Amino acid sequence: MKFFLPVHQDIGPIGPDRNWKGIGISLLVIMAVLSCIGLSIVLLSQDGSGKTLGAPLALDDLFQRSFEIHDPEAKWISAQEVIYRSWNGDIFKLNVYSNETELLLKNSTFATFKATKFAVSPDKKFVLLGYNVQPVYKHSFLASFLIYDLSTREVWELNPPEVPDSVLQFASWGVQGQQLLYVFENNIYYQADSRSFSWRLTSSGQEAAIFNGIADWLYEEEVLDSPVAHWWSPDGSRLAYLTINDSLVPSMMLPRFTGSLYPRGTEYPYPKMGQINPSVSLHVVSLDGSSTSTQISLLLFACLCSDFYVTMVKWVTRQNLSVRWVNRAQNMSILSLCDASSGACVTKHVMTSEAWLDRQVRVLDGSSILSRVLMSHVDESAAGCGSFLFLNRFFFQKGSSWNIIWITKLVSELNQDQNFLNSSKTMPQYLSMLNGFHKECLSCSLFKPDCSFYQAAIAPDHRHVLLSCTGKTWQPENLLLPHSKPAGLFTVRFSGFPGLFLFKCFYSLLTERFSLGWESVLVSSDRVVVARVDGRGSAGRGQDVLQAVYQNLGVVDVQDQIAALQRLMKLPYIDRSRVGVYGKAYGGFLSSVLLLTFSSMIKCGVAVAPVTNWKLCGSAGSERFFGFPVKADLSYQVGTADGASCLSSSRKLKGHGASSSVHFQHSAELVQLLSARNFNYTLQVETRSAGFCPPGEQILTRKFLQKF
Amino acid sequence: MKFFLPVHQDIGPIGPDRNWKGIGISLLVIMAVLSCIGLSIVLLSQDGSGKTLGAPLALDDLFQRSFEIHDPEAKWISAQEVIYRSWNGDIFKLNVYSNETELLLKNSTFATFKATKFAVSPDKKFVLLGYNVQPVYKHSFLASFLIYDLSTREVWELNPPEVPDSVLQFASWGVQGQQLLYVFENNIYYQADSRSFSWRLTSSGQEAAIFNGIADWLYEEEVLDSPVAHWWSPDGSRLAYLTINDSLVPSMMLPRFTGSLYPRGTEYPYPKMGQINPSVSLHVVSLDGSSTSTQISLLLFACLCSDFYVTMVKWVTRQNLSVRWVNRAQNMSILSLCDASSGACVTKHVMTSEAWLDRQVRVLDGSSILSRVLMSHVDESAAGCGSFLFLNRFFFQKGSSWNIIWITKLVSELNQDQNFLNSSKTMPQYLSMLNGFHKECLSCSLFKPDCSFYQAAIAPDHRHVLLSCTGKTWQPENLLLPHSKPAGLFTVRFSGFPGLFLFKCFYSLLTERFSLGWESVLVSSDRVVVARVDGRGSAGRGQDVLQAVYQNLGVVDVQDQIAALQRLMKLPYIDRSRVGVYGKAYGGFLSSVLLLTFSSMIKCGVAVAPVTNWKLCGSAGSERFFGFPVKADLSYQVGTADGASCLSSSRKLKGHGASSSVHFQHSAELVQLLSARNFNYTLQVETRSAGFCPPGEQILTRKFLQKF
Repeated sequence: MKFFLPVHQDIGPIGPDRNWKGIGISLLVIMAVLSCIGLSIVLLSQDGSGKTLGAPLALDDLFQRSFEIHDPEAKWISAQEVIYRSWNGDIFKLNVYSNETELLLKNSTFATFKATKFAVSPDKKFVLLGYNVQPVYKHSFLASFLIYDLSTREVWELNPPEVPDSVLQFASWGVQGQQLLYVFENNIYYQADSRSFSWRLTSSGQEAAIFNGIADWLYEEEVLDSPVAHWWSPDGSRLAYLTINDSLVPSMMLPRFTGSLYPRGTEYPYPKMGQINPSVSLHVVSLDGSSTSTQISLLLFACLCSDFYVTMVKWVTRQNLSVRWVNRAQNMSILSLCDASSGACVTKHVMTSEAWLDRQVRVLDGSSILSRVLMSHVDESAAGCGSFLFLNRFFFQKGSSWNIIWITKLVSELNQDQNFLNSSKTMPQYLSMLNGFHKECLSCSLFKPDCSFYQAAIAPDHRHVLLSCTGKTWQPENLLLPHSKPAGLFTVRFSGFPGLFLFKCFYSLLTERFSLGWESVLVSSDRVVVARVDGRGSAGRGQDVLQAVYQNLGVVDVQDQIAALQRLMKLPYIDRSRVGVYGKAYGGFLSSVLLLTFSSMIKCGVAVAPVTNWKLCGSAGSERFFGFPVKADLSYQVGTADGASCLSSSRKLKGHGASSSVHFQHSAELVQLLSARNFNYTLQVETRSAGFCPPGEQILTRKFLQKF
Repeated sequence: MKFFLPVHQDIGPIGPDRNWKGIGISLLVIMAVLSCIGLSIVLLSQDGSGKTLGAPLALDDLFQRSFEIHDPEAKWISAQEVIYRSWNGDIFKLNVYSNETELLLKNSTFATFKATKFAVSPDKKFVLLGYNVQPVYKHSFLASFLIYDLSTREVWELNPPEVPDSVLQFASWGVQGQQLLYVFENNIYYQADSRSFSWRLTSSGQEAAIFNGIADWLYEEEVLDSPVAHWWSPDGSRLAYLTINDSLVPSMMLPRFTGSLYPRGTEYPYPKMGQINPSVSLHVVSLDGSSTSTQISLLLFACLCSDFYVTMVKWVTRQNLSVRWVNRAQNMSILSLCDASSGACVTKHVMTSEAWLDRQVRVLDGSSILSRVLMSHVDESAAGCGSFLFLNRFFFQKGSSWNIIWITKLVSELNQDQNFLNSSKTMPQYLSMLNGFHKECLSCSLFKPDCSFYQAAIAPDHRHVLLSCTGKTWQPENLLLPHSKPAGLFTVRFSGFPGLFLFKCFYSLLTERFSLGWESVLVSSDRVVVARVDGRGSAGRGQDVLQAVYQNLGVVDVQDQIAALQRLMKLPYIDRSRVGVYGKAYGGFLSSVLLLTFSSMIKCGVAVAPVTNWKLCGSAGSERFFGFPVKADLSYQVGTADGASCLSSSRKLKGHGASSSVHFQHSAELVQLLSARNFNYTLQVETRSAGFCPPGEQILTRKFLQKF
C-alpha cells in the first residue's frame, strides 16, 4: 500500500472562458457490494463563495514522488521484535522492550539482487528475497527467489531440485525455524531448513488445470481474496492445502498486442456465470518427513450440493482445523471442525439466507467463532433501516445449542488477528481488545489530531500493539475545504478532507483512511461537487439495503442513482446543465446505464472498464447477485447495455477497455451497441496492464474536464 | 464488385455557424504502390462561387439500396453463350448468335437453398450452389455446396466421402464436362462427373500448416492475389497445384471479443517481415484415374535461393507449363518452361532488379511471354520522368537470344485473357485486340458518352467481346460539379465526376471506373477539396518514381506528401487553417506521420487501420520495399510512429483499430505512443469484420467533419 501527501503547488488562474464558480465540495460515499466498485456523479456548482485555502490539487500531482508517503511495512516477527523498512529502504529490527534497532539488510542488498520483496525467517537468520516480480492476477505474482544468510552474507537461489533459474508461483517461510514452502508448476515444495533438500509435497499439479496450495483465478479474486491456498498448523508440523481442479473450466483468453512481434495470448481458467466451476478438495500433509497426506472429508457437504466453495480454512489447535463450505448459490454455509489425522469433520454451524451469505466469518478457537450476524434496530439512529450486520462471538456448546456474546455494534475493520478490532465508526480511531469476554478501548486515550485512521497489529504475546497511521496526516489548510450547503435528507459531517455527507442509515463505510484520486482533484482544483451515491446494494446500510439488489442488480441500484441525482440537482448551488458521471467496473456499468437511459440529465461521463453483461463476469462474484442455478435467462441480461431504453446522440459517453478483472469483451459489446446507435463516444484502450490511473484513463479524465 | 448510382436527394441548408464557402472540387489521384492504399488530404476552400448543380451526396446515401447498380456477373461459358444474372437475381443463358435467352435458374432457387454463389458446369447441365458463405481472408471463403441438376431439378450436397454436411475451402467445376474439384481440410478432391465418387488427390493437408491447391494467407494476399493455387491443363487431363508448407511459420492470433461467451482467437500462419516464410512445391497430378503425381523440379532455383515464391503458373500446352519463381528479396525472377510428365524445367528468362520486380508477367504460349518492361523516353510527354513500364511481347528463340515486339506504350489493364488489352489512358475506353502481331483498337468506334470505362471479356473463339460498363453512367448535373482554379504545375482534365488534376508524368493510374466513397461525399456535400497526392512510390509515373521508396519507405513518400501539401496550400481558394488528412492502411501510416510530424499544417485527421510498424506486416508485401535479408535494423523502423519528430497536443488524430490485413497490433503501438505523449486523439474499434465503411469508420468520419 502506498499513500500520497500533497505539497504546495502554484497553479495558474482558471481561464476566463470558464464560468464555474461554486466550490461546494461534497462527497456522498457509496460502497457497492461488488468487488469492482466506484461510481461518482460529478456536479458543477452554480455559485458559491469558495476561496482557495491552499494550492489546489492537480491531476499531475497524483503522479509526483513528493505526494508519496513512506510505508514502513512494519510487522511483528516475535513477541519482542518488529521489523520495518526505513525511508531509504534499509530493513531494521526493533526490540520494543530495549528500544534497540539493528540493521538487518541494507537497501544496497536489494539493489544488488534487484529484489523487491523480502521476508525474514522465523529464526531471524535468513531473508528470502524476491526479484523479477511479474504480477499475475489481483494479488498473485511470479518471481525468482534468493535466500540471504544474514550472518555470513552468503546468498543462493531457491530452486526446485534440478530446476536452475526457476520462476516460482509462491515462496515464503513457515512458522518455525527456517521452514520454507514454495509452489512451482502448481505443486507444493517444502524445505525443513534453508539449506536442506526440497520435498515435493504434491505431484498432481498441472499448468492452468490443477492447482495445489495456491489459488486459481476464481479462488484468488472471488473466493479467498488471496493467492494463498495453504495454511500452516500452529506448530508448523502440518500443512493444510487446497487442490483446485480447473480441468473442466472454460478458459478465458487475454490477448496482448504490444511488446512482441506476434500478439501473445494468455489463457487461464475463468468460469463465467453459470459455467463449470473448479472442483476443490482439502488436504493435510505431515511435515515430519513422512509426507502423509489426509484428505478432509467433503462427503457430507458433497451430498448436499454438487458444487461448492471452500471459503475459509483455519487451524484452531495443532490437531483440528475449522473449515467453512459454501454452496455455489452462496446462500448456505457449513462451518465444520475437522480432525487433521482422520480427515473427519463435524458440522458446527449452518447458515442459510434468502439472498447470499456474507463471507466474513472468523474462527477464534476450537470452541468459538467470531461472525457478523444480522440484528435489527439495536441502534436508535438506525431505526427503520432494517437489519444490520454486527460482530458477535458464538460459543459452541454441547449438542446444537450455542451462546452468543454480543461484542460490537458496528465494525468496519476486522483485523487479521481476530483478537483485535479496529473500528472507525464514531471515533477517528477506535481500537478494542478482546480478551475473553472483556472489551476495552485502547485508542480512546491515544487520540492524535494529525492521525485519524490507524491500522493495528498485535504482538504475538498480546502485550503490544503496532499502530500504522494511514489516515490524514496533513493540515487541512493545505487543501481547498468544503463549505457546502446541504439540503433535504442529508446530515453533514465535516471531517477535514474531503467533506462528507452522510445518508441516514449510513454506517460503517465512511472510512477516514487517506486516499487521493481523480475525484480529489475534481473537488480541489475544478470546483466540482463529487457525490458518491449510497443506493441499494451498498454495504453498511443494513441487509435490506444491501441485498435489495439480489435478482435485481441493474434495476434497483440504478433507480437509487437516479433518485439521488434528482435530489442533488435540486440543490441551489448545483449547475444542472453540467452534471457528469464517472464509474469503474461495476461503477462503469452504472455510469453506462445512466448515460444511455438518462442522457437528458447528464452532460457527459466516463465508464472505465465497464461491466456491460453480467454473463461475462466470474461465476462466484456474479452468481451471488443472480443466483445459481440460473432462475431465468432474463435475470442475467439485466446488466446488458441492450436494456437501455433510450439514447441520445448528443451525449458524450467515453468508454475504456482494458482491465484485468473486467475483460475487454464488455467494452466490445458496448462499442457494438454504441456504434449501432450512432452514440457519440470516445474510446480509450490501455496497451499495458493498468496501474494507478494509466495513460488512457488520464486522457479520458482530461477530455472529460474539457467537455465539462 | 458492387457499384452505386446516385439519386436526387434533398438535403437541408448548411447551418449558419458554418462559414465554409468554397466549392472548388479537385482530386489529385495517388495510387501508392502498396497493396493497402488510400491517403487523402482534405482541404477546405476559402472562397469560390460554387453552386449546387444537383442534390449533394450525403454519407447516408452511400448505404442506400437505391445507390446500388446491378452487376450482371456476365461470363462466357462457350464460344456462343454467355450467362448473366438479371436484376431480380434469375440466371439466364444468352446465345450471342441467335440472341435467344434461356432461364437457367430462378432466383427462388437461390432463396430455397440460401445460396449466394453459383457456377454452371462446362457441359451446362449442372449448377454448383454455395451457401453459408463465411469470408476468410481478402478473397477466400468457407462454404457448403450443393449440386443442382438443371434438367431434373434434383439437388444434392457436395461432400467428401463419409463427411456429411461438410464445409469446403474451395469448390469449382473443371474445364471439361462435369469435372469437379474441391478442397477440404487442405486436401484436393476430384470428381470426374457430378455424381461420381470423389478421389482425394493429396493427403498431406494439415490444418493451418500444409495447404494443397489453395493459398495460405501469404500466397492469397501478397503473392498470387487469389485463394486458388491450382491450375487445370487446357484439356482437363492434368492439374497443377501448389503445396504450401507453413509448419515453421509463426502464427498470428486474431481475437474476437463479441458473439460468444468466451473470446475466440483465430490463429493462422502469418510470416512477418524477416520471419520464416512457407516453403512451396509445385506438383502435377494426372486426372486419368491413375492419380500419378509429379513434382516440378525446383532444383536449379533452390540452389540459387533458399527462400523463394512461386508467383505464376500457366499451362502453355497440354504437356508444358510455364512457371515463374521469384527470390524472397523479389529482385530476381526466373521464368521457366516445365514438362508436366518429367517435372523437368528449362529456364527461359531471368530478370533482376536493384529494387524489386514487378509481378505482372503473362505467358502467351510456349514460345512467347507478354511482359511489362522498362523503357525510357518513348513518349514525349513523359520526357524527364525516367523509365516506364510498357507491355511487350518477347519471343523466345534458340539459345539465349530473343526478339521483342513492342505492343503498347501504356497499359492500365491487362485482361485475364492475354490476347486482349484494355486501356483507359487517353480515350475513355480503349480496347485492343492482339492477334499475332496485329493490334487493333476495338473500342475507338464504340464511344458512348454515358459510359467512360469498360471491362471486357473475350469469347473463347475470339469472335466476340463482352463489355461491362463500370464507368460513369449518370448525367453530370446530378452532382455538384467542380469549377476549380488549378495553379502551379497542374494541368486540368475535366472528366465529369469527380474533377481530376493530373500531375505531369502521370499516366495509367487515372481510372474512370466508377466508385463512390467518403471522399465523394466530402466533395459533393461538404464543399471540400480532396487531393490524392501522387508522390514517390506511386505506380504510373515511371519506375524512378515508383521505386524511389525502396529502402526509403516512410521517408521520400512522406516528403512528397508534404511538398504537395505545401503547394496545395498556396492555392487561393484554400482555407489553410482547415486542412485535414485521411488514410487507410498504408494511407493510415502516412496520415499518422503527417499528423505527428507536421501538425502545424493539419488541423485533424483520420488514420484507419494504420500501419505503424513495418516489422508487423506480412513478409512478401513489406520486404519488397525493405529488402531481404534485413540490411539494417533501422530500415525496418522507418515506419514506426516513434520516428515522429514533433507532436502537438492540440491536433486531433483519430485512430481506428480493426482490420483483417493490418492487425490491431499496429493501432495498439500507436495508442501506446499517443498516450505516452498526451496526444489528443479519439479511438474507434470495429467489433465485427469490416465491410464497406463499417460503423466505427462512419463515426470517425462524422466526428472528423464536426471538428473540421
